[in-house]
Amino acid sequence: MTRYGFLGPVGTFTQAALAGWPAAKGREQTAFSSVDKALAALREGEIDAAMVPIENSVEGGVSATLDALHTGDPLTVVGEVLVPITFVLAVRPGTTRDDVRAVGTHPHGWAQVRGWMGSELPDAVYVPTLSTAAAAADLAAGLVDSYQAAVCAPVAAQGTGLQVLASDIEDRSGAVTRFVLAARPGELPEPTGADKTTVVVYQYDDHAGGLLELLEQFAARGINISRLESRPTGDVMGRYCFSIDFEGHVRDARVGEALTGLRRVAADVRFLGSYPRADGQQASIQLTATDDAFADADRWLADLRGERTH
Amino acid sequence: MTRYGFLGPVGTFTQAALAGWPAAKGREQTAFSSVDKALAALREGEIDAAMVPIENSVEGGVSATLDALHTGDPLTVVGEVLVPITFVLAVRPGTTRDDVRAVGTHPHGWAQVRGWMGSELPDAVYVPTLSTAAAAADLAAGLVDSYQAAVCAPVAAQGTGLQVLASDIEDRSGAVTRFVLAARPGELPEPTGADKTTVVVYQYDDHAGGLLELLEQFAARGINISRLESRPTGDVMGRYCFSIDFEGHVRDARVGEALTGLRRVAADVRFLGSYPRADGQQASIQLTATDDAFADADRWLADLRGERTH
Amino acid sequence: MTRYGFLGPVGTFTQAALAGWPAAKGREQTAFSSVDKALAALREGEIDAAMVPIENSVEGGVSATLDALHTGDPLTVVGEVLVPITFVLAVRPGTTRDDVRAVGTHPHGWAQVRGWMGSELPDAVYVPTLSTAAAAADLAAGLVDSYQAAVCAPVAAQGTGLQVLASDIEDRSGAVTRFVLAARPGELPEPTGADKTTVVVYQYDDHAGGLLELLEQFAARGINISRLESRPTGDVMGRYCFSIDFEGHVRDARVGEALTGLRRVAADVRFLGSYPRADGQQASIQLTATDDAFADADRWLADLRGERTH
Amino acid sequence: MTRYGFLGPVGTFTQAALAGWPAAKGREQTAFSSVDKALAALREGEIDAAMVPIENSVEGGVSATLDALHTGDPLTVVGEVLVPITFVLAVRPGTTRDDVRAVGTHPHGWAQVRGWMGSELPDAVYVPTLSTAAAAADLAAGLVDSYQAAVCAPVAAQGTGLQVLASDIEDRSGAVTRFVLAARPGELPEPTGADKTTVVVYQYDDHAGGLLELLEQFAARGINISRLESRPTGDVMGRYCFSIDFEGHVRDARVGEALTGLRRVAADVRFLGSYPRADGQQASIQLTATDDAFADADRWLADLRGERTH
Repeated sequence: MTRYGFLGPVGTFTQAALAGWPAAKGREQTAFSSVDKALAALREGEIDAAMVPIENSVEGGVSATLDALHTGDPLTVVGEVLVPITFVLAVRPGTTRDDVRAVGTHPHGWAQVRGWMGSELPDAVYVPTLSTAAAAADLAAGLVDSYQAAVCAPVAAQGTGLQVLASDIEDRSGAVTRFVLAARPGELPEPTGADKTTVVVYQYDDHAGGLLELLEQFAARGINISRLESRPTGDVMGRYCFSIDFEGHVRDARVGEALTGLRRVAADVRFLGSYPRADGQQASIQLTATDDAFADADRWLADLRGERTH
Repeated sequence: MTRYGFLGPVGTFTQAALAGWPAAKGREQTAFSSVDKALAALREGEIDAAMVPIENSVEGGVSATLDALHTGDPLTVVGEVLVPITFVLAVRPGTTRDDVRAVGTHPHGWAQVRGWMGSELPDAVYVPTLSTAAAAADLAAGLVDSYQAAVCAPVAAQGTGLQVLASDIEDRSGAVTRFVLAARPGELPEPTGADKTTVVVYQYDDHAGGLLELLEQFAARGINISRLESRPTGDVMGRYCFSIDFEGHVRDARVGEALTGLRRVAADVRFLGSYPRADGQQASIQLTATDDAFADADRWLADLRGERTH
Repeated sequence: MTRYGFLGPVGTFTQAALAGWPAAKGREQTAFSSVDKALAALREGEIDAAMVPIENSVEGGVSATLDALHTGDPLTVVGEVLVPITFVLAVRPGTTRDDVRAVGTHPHGWAQVRGWMGSELPDAVYVPTLSTAAAAADLAAGLVDSYQAAVCAPVAAQGTGLQVLASDIEDRSGAVTRFVLAARPGELPEPTGADKTTVVVYQYDDHAGGLLELLEQFAARGINISRLESRPTGDVMGRYCFSIDFEGHVRDARVGEALTGLRRVAADVRFLGSYPRADGQQASIQLTATDDAFADADRWLADLRGERTH
Repeated sequence: MTRYGFLGPVGTFTQAALAGWPAAKGREQTAFSSVDKALAALREGEIDAAMVPIENSVEGGVSATLDALHTGDPLTVVGEVLVPITFVLAVRPGTTRDDVRAVGTHPHGWAQVRGWMGSELPDAVYVPTLSTAAAAADLAAGLVDSYQAAVCAPVAAQGTGLQVLASDIEDRSGAVTRFVLAARPGELPEPTGADKTTVVVYQYDDHAGGLLELLEQFAARGINISRLESRPTGDVMGRYCFSIDFEGHVRDARVGEALTGLRRVAADVRFLGSYPRADGQQASIQLTATDDAFADADRWLADLRGERTH
């Protein structure tokens, strides 16, 4: 892959995520103004991969990404990146804290620094902007006079030449956002033993216990679900599909069997990829669900069926 | 198969069951005094197949058969026969109802005609015997003077030359006993679309929800269980295995997958055979569990894994 | 309770079970020739309690007891007794091993000493009798000349004045039979913390997952099932009810809620009693299923509903 | 309730939702610039109820609302409103289609009219704004010259005196957004037979089958789940709580029991209210889960426990 896209503008956490993907280094990197646009460009072949936020992003985008990935031509997730979310208070060189009467940032960014602001700059007025990166860029470019400081990602301050007055100003430390790298279907990443698979599952109808039935397909093969979200199908209010991440790779025996089980009992299953986990944590596989356990059971069944002669 | 055995003596319902198995017609048919002995002779090669009662027998034997089938060298069930259970009151030629002051039969037989006896022969004394057939045989042979009439199967009266004073004297009509024909492992009966499979499953340990876990292996593949019994494993009181009959043939896709699932999660699985149902009732297979549904899901998975090129 | 009955004849393991029930000491104790007769006498008020075998009995009776308990007027189990199953070889005074050419006993008894007989008395012929106690009684009374030794319970040898040639001759030591004391419905035994409850549950219809649904009622309240058997309902072959033992007392919160759940989803539930376990083993209750957990949750719900003002 | 708040600004779909709540008519209605701010005002007693978007909103806000509702002092949902999502193309009086070279709106609004724009105004440039209402307000106030038309809700065009050039320009008709009216805990809305309950459930830990366990609490009481979303708890990536809507009212017997079940097995349960469904659709209650079925089962249990004398 030589052409990468990301949810822009330059200076967002998504660019930081792309910076954390070694293979993208030195490659063409294009910023898109929305997840939809980045994925459209990917589907149309203008780029080869797109880095988009999928969970807990300060820039928004979770639901948009989930929906955009499984609507339209098939796309596959080939990797994920976790980015620690941390904010700085950035100003034009020369500005001091006392000069700051108003602060510009995206509402999601503001939500995460309100505590700090309340105690450190209690009199500062909040000015909403379209993104944290835009707050920084516009400030640096001298385009605004409604605020004197921007709350943004460290990378945005660096990239625009702003000065950092305060770092790590987020109220809750340890927050991370999860990004995924989407590509057109092609070669699967090889299993690593620490993999994750993402699917979207559509139910036939919405009866009591319907979701239970889907989840039993995982439980019957000892598979751990790591994320589950109902998403509206867009048809009528109250109809849902389920976006699900679970441990393991499509080439693992237990995962393959669970997927065929879902395929049978669900109205539809969209496979969105198997890829190495960003945290490298090995899957916790019960002894009854290893590839060996499946192979042993398959040999036993072949014997029962009289399919083996040796 | 040329040599058949059955739970004797001659004149029991088990002989009637063997008479209902066309292939046994004209073959050697040996009566054994217990299920254990019949199965031992089968395991040692003295006979090729044994007809034994497995459910609701008036001659007893259910538990004994269940346990004997899965303990020791492997045996396979290759067929089942249902025999309507009906009783006659049989006497030596010349005996009239007024002559009958005592009636001999097996306790299980007596239990099923008590109502009739109470209204038709209220003064008759009950004399327990070792089997209903023995009651008839001993009476016919002039070996007993403690009773003047026997309650037995029609076949026993016929075979011993006794005269039938009254037929269909059972209190609850419509009762049937289920018999199975056991053989040494070999060729499986072909799938017919109306098949049954019998297994014995041993749990790893006895925790809340353990049985639930086993049953989910069936539910996840849409398989209907038709009989389930816990049987003590014989190790310690309170440890059980489960004897299970379910719809379908080991060569059906859904059955194969359920069996491998059991094999993985259970401590042990004894496969006791797939065989045509005696009642010929087609399995009720959900659309999501047909062989086609499995084959379609397998192709889909192969595509996801990049295993198919066409 | 002053009048006790038991499955006779005198000298069986069932009498030994009654001997293990302290309250029966010195009371009237009547032997019945079948479980059915003992329970009929109990239902008609001729006796106040009946000791009958319910599991793994060498005298037969498991299925008969299970069915007899829940068919007809309600009966309640008020206690259980475990009796170690051990056999002796008993002879008339003066008889020596060399004199023993044939051995009389019940088929179930014979099945449990075959190994010992094969090595110690390999030439002895087996003579089936109606019960192990009858084998002993008839031998002691001089009524038989077809065998010279009986295999029976120690209590049968003692009671009939026979002499014990060999003890503990069972092939598998450690076997026990479980007996229950049945009574007419009345006062429940108090909860002891080590209780068991027995029910019979009838399904509405026989669909895939029907049993699963019943078992979820237990699982949802953290209740451990200790015995489960499908029993034919007697209507048509293939229709079953389930005889179930589980940990806990009907007055335990988790048990009460599970029972009401069963009552709602099942076609019928027959409550057969809550009673102290014979082995005294305390129930293993998860923290989420204690009476306190239920009471806490009830208070919380009352608050949500605005039912509490303090 | 006399003081209402809503997610502003004036002219959003949220204001339309509040207009659909009869009791709010003629009351004080305050616009807040974020869901957080509206709920904070509610928690602090400045307003008595807040209308906020909770599902599928074009203005964003779903996740923010879900999280804000269950974080901090308890709030209760007392009602819901469904608002059809429809867009107009609005201009200052006198502007014609030919004058429109750029269109301002919120990115979510733009996403829903892209098809219409592509065919009707293919050359128009898209200018992102902070909300659809702001696009209209700024245009009406003459504050912008970067765009000549706004895509906004009909209510926004009306309220600002803009002229509607085209109506119903959304690409997918039939979309609705769901809003809820939140209040401080107090009187519960009465059950109507067509109610919904919302809870947030925290798992103890994240094991295979953990979610299954929670869902069994609903299934065991025949309760239909209408929405389920995993939400990060904010502690560490990969730890979730579940936001769940289900049919029924906390005063319904089946709902009460399911809630106590969740309370026992979950680490925590936040009850967010029982309220009439906006669509008035009666709950589909199985016969086994009606209040009568619960009451009947409770009486039966009381009898078993000897708690009733009449």
